[in-house]
Amino acid sequence: MATTAQSVADVCAAAREASRALATVDDRTKDAALEAMASALEERMGEVLEANARDMEAGAEAGLNAALLDRLKLDEERIRAIAEQVRDIAALPDPVGEVLEGYRLENGLEIRRVRVPLGVVAVVYEARPNVTIDCSALCLKSGNAIVLRGSSAATHSNAVLAEVAGTAVESVGLPRACVSLVAGGGREELKDLATQAGVVDLIIPRGGEGLKAALQEVATVPVIYAAAGNCHVYVDATANLDDAARIVFNAKVQRPGVCNSAETLLVHADAAPDLLPRTLRDLREAGVELRVDARTRALAGDLADSVVDADDDDWGTEYLALILAVKVVDSLDEAIEHVNRYSSGHSEAIVTDSTESAERFTHAIDAACVYVNASTRFTDGGVFGMGAEIGNSTQKLHVRGPIGVRELTTYKYVAEGTGQIRE
Amino acid sequence: MATTAQSVADVCAAAREASRALATVDDRTKDAALEAMASALEERMGEVLEANARDMEAGAEAGLNAALLDRLKLDEERIRAIAEQVRDIAALPDPVGEVLEGYRLENGLEIRRVRVPLGVVAVVYEARPNVTIDCSALCLKSGNAIVLRGSSAATHSNAVLAEVAGTAVESVGLPRACVSLVAGGGREELKDLATQAGVVDLIIPRGGEGLKAALQEVATVPVIYAAAGNCHVYVDATANLDDAARIVFNAKVQRPGVCNSAETLLVHADAAPDLLPRTLRDLREAGVELRVDARTRALAGDLADSVVDADDDDWGTEYLALILAVKVVDSLDEAIEHVNRYSSGHSEAIVTDSTESAERFTHAIDAACVYVNASTRFTDGGVFGMGAEIGNSTQKLHVRGPIGVRELTTYKYVAEGTGQIRE
Repeated sequence: MATTAQSVADVCAAAREASRALATVDDRTKDAALEAMASALEERMGEVLEANARDMEAGAEAGLNAALLDRLKLDEERIRAIAEQVRDIAALPDPVGEVLEGYRLENGLEIRRVRVPLGVVAVVYEARPNVTIDCSALCLKSGNAIVLRGSSAATHSNAVLAEVAGTAVESVGLPRACVSLVAGGGREELKDLATQAGVVDLIIPRGGEGLKAALQEVATVPVIYAAAGNCHVYVDATANLDDAARIVFNAKVQRPGVCNSAETLLVHADAAPDLLPRTLRDLREAGVELRVDARTRALAGDLADSVVDADDDDWGTEYLALILAVKVVDSLDEAIEHVNRYSSGHSEAIVTDSTESAERFTHAIDAACVYVNASTRFTDGGVFGMGAEIGNSTQKLHVRGPIGVRELTTYKYVAEGTGQIRE
Repeated sequence: MATTAQSVADVCAAAREASRALATVDDRTKDAALEAMASALEERMGEVLEANARDMEAGAEAGLNAALLDRLKLDEERIRAIAEQVRDIAALPDPVGEVLEGYRLENGLEIRRVRVPLGVVAVVYEARPNVTIDCSALCLKSGNAIVLRGSSAATHSNAVLAEVAGTAVESVGLPRACVSLVAGGGREELKDLATQAGVVDLIIPRGGEGLKAALQEVATVPVIYAAAGNCHVYVDATANLDDAARIVFNAKVQRPGVCNSAETLLVHADAAPDLLPRTLRDLREAGVELRVDARTRALAGDLADSVVDADDDDWGTEYLALILAVKVVDSLDEAIEHVNRYSSGHSEAIVTDSTESAERFTHAIDAACVYVNASTRFTDGGVFGMGAEIGNSTQKLHVRGPIGVRELTTYKYVAEGTGQIRE
């Protein structure tokens, strides 16, 4: 763990050194460290709560809004949930050492492609102190040393939590520097961290667009950016309209503030007259603001007064709020074109009874997750059976969709011979 | 194919559009395009040779050295080899559509993780005109549109070759813009290409450090950098010395100018007295300059006068020439530490009869390819059974080692339901 006296470069160098030991340790040792971490969280609950209370007090004084304070807050229930999450991560299969493929060349060379840790992963995050433990546990399980750079708003909480994690790691004989916390939360530290190419292998930002832009400007270390989720539900001509209504409502309303919620509804002209009046009513009753094209307005009936005309910006906006853009399209092709034009590549859904439409949509849509007859809200490492996620990638290189322990690894080729040379 | 009138942005936008059609086309169509490309190369050989003669003439006038002129040169044999390579790529299994895993969630949602093309891949390369066809074929097979940016020295050759590729693609009904050539070879065009984030999905530079540095400065598009290969052979205490001598000689001498050749020999102190005198003599006789530590010098016998003292820079240098740094170490651990400190993460070898040493070395060494009792010279997509390679990655994200058709893909999750919503 970092003390304030250590520079970011020193912290990262120590993490690199520690990562060598962690990369080759067996799963039992890693799981023992995770169990020690979970137990320590429960045993040292008072200490964690006290540190968190100091952050909450400082946050209130600094005028943080209620949403931010809620993210910052820990209570007994939340800490127990974090500990359980650590145990769930321990229970996952060890990704390290998995032989991804193996074959023998004609010259007798035996080649195996083996999954190995990345090395050092840095996570840059904002208020939520649970990230400190969640990400430490995911990195530990995947054999990576972690460098944490949290928000200054969570300074006291993070310090205790990283101390808990470091002690747990040390208790099984691993270097304490497997888990490190960069003390300062300033832009200088961010730059120092982001330029540790060759020492830090990956940076994962968990935060808003400002953080991502700041990294994009300075980073020489590879970064996995999780773009916003501008997600669509397209209701095809042949859709089961009951399913469609439920899926649209769920995708928008169940938790509007997250990246896998829907922002735009596209409806085939054949389905629109039956679907739109009821769906628009359901959504309005749930408090959803509707930004609609002219054809949707024409079908809005007595809701016509309470809908807003969509403009071009609406199609490209991730509202993260109870707002939905709605548009009628004339064909599946028009829907595909619209989605591929405006999608951020996160989660896209079609509701259809046509296998042909389903196949064309899933083939043509360029996104991490494409749903047929299901809500976009399922995109999540936990839901997908990956145990937990460190984020959700909308980029195409290395990882797409949820980032779990497997996605925090790379591979190496191991080639065993009996004296082979190249002729 | 680009005309000079088209801007880089226009070329990339057209490639993006073309990539949509290419992404969902079946393998038979792609293979037909590849066969058309191979046949056209043979049929239009005179035209290709004529264009190449113009480049060779201009190159000679511009004073290109013999090595560069040899890279630029095409002859009948080389063109036939390129056509055969295209047919070999066609014969590879289609990576697109491979289901990497599939499972069913408790709620009935059927999830498949499916391999899909990246979209648009740009390749930036230097003199060799064969790259134009090789990379076009690899991208076509993997369902990616390609944007080529070759060297101005190969302008005429590349124009004809890209025209051949584009015509072949068009002959099977695919958009011609699946293969595009950016006309100008200047730094402005490079910057225009490297900043097409969201349009171009990946840039692969095939060239020297200057090109990589130029990209690193401006690129917003993801780049896969292939670092230099500072490769080591470590001869363990228990090595079979005949094998060791052959492997060291092969790794250094067989083709010293390539990235998987060895640059440093490490020898365990127990093996050094028997191995070094004979190996140093063999190497010297092959014209290898030896840069040695004091303990190696002490064992050099009558060669002592013809070896050079190594300085610290030697351990970190990729000579790409008949030069070898040599050092005696006291333990496997010292060898591992040396390699992990100086290696560029390309290809590293141990020669040993100890299974324990072999296991510790392969686990601890942080490189794309780790060899036991074999030459480092095998790191190559063709040798590894990948058919062909577009380059060799020493980075850890997305792809490590040879970049073949599979490595030019990403994946998407396709989730099929029956109306599932998130509770």
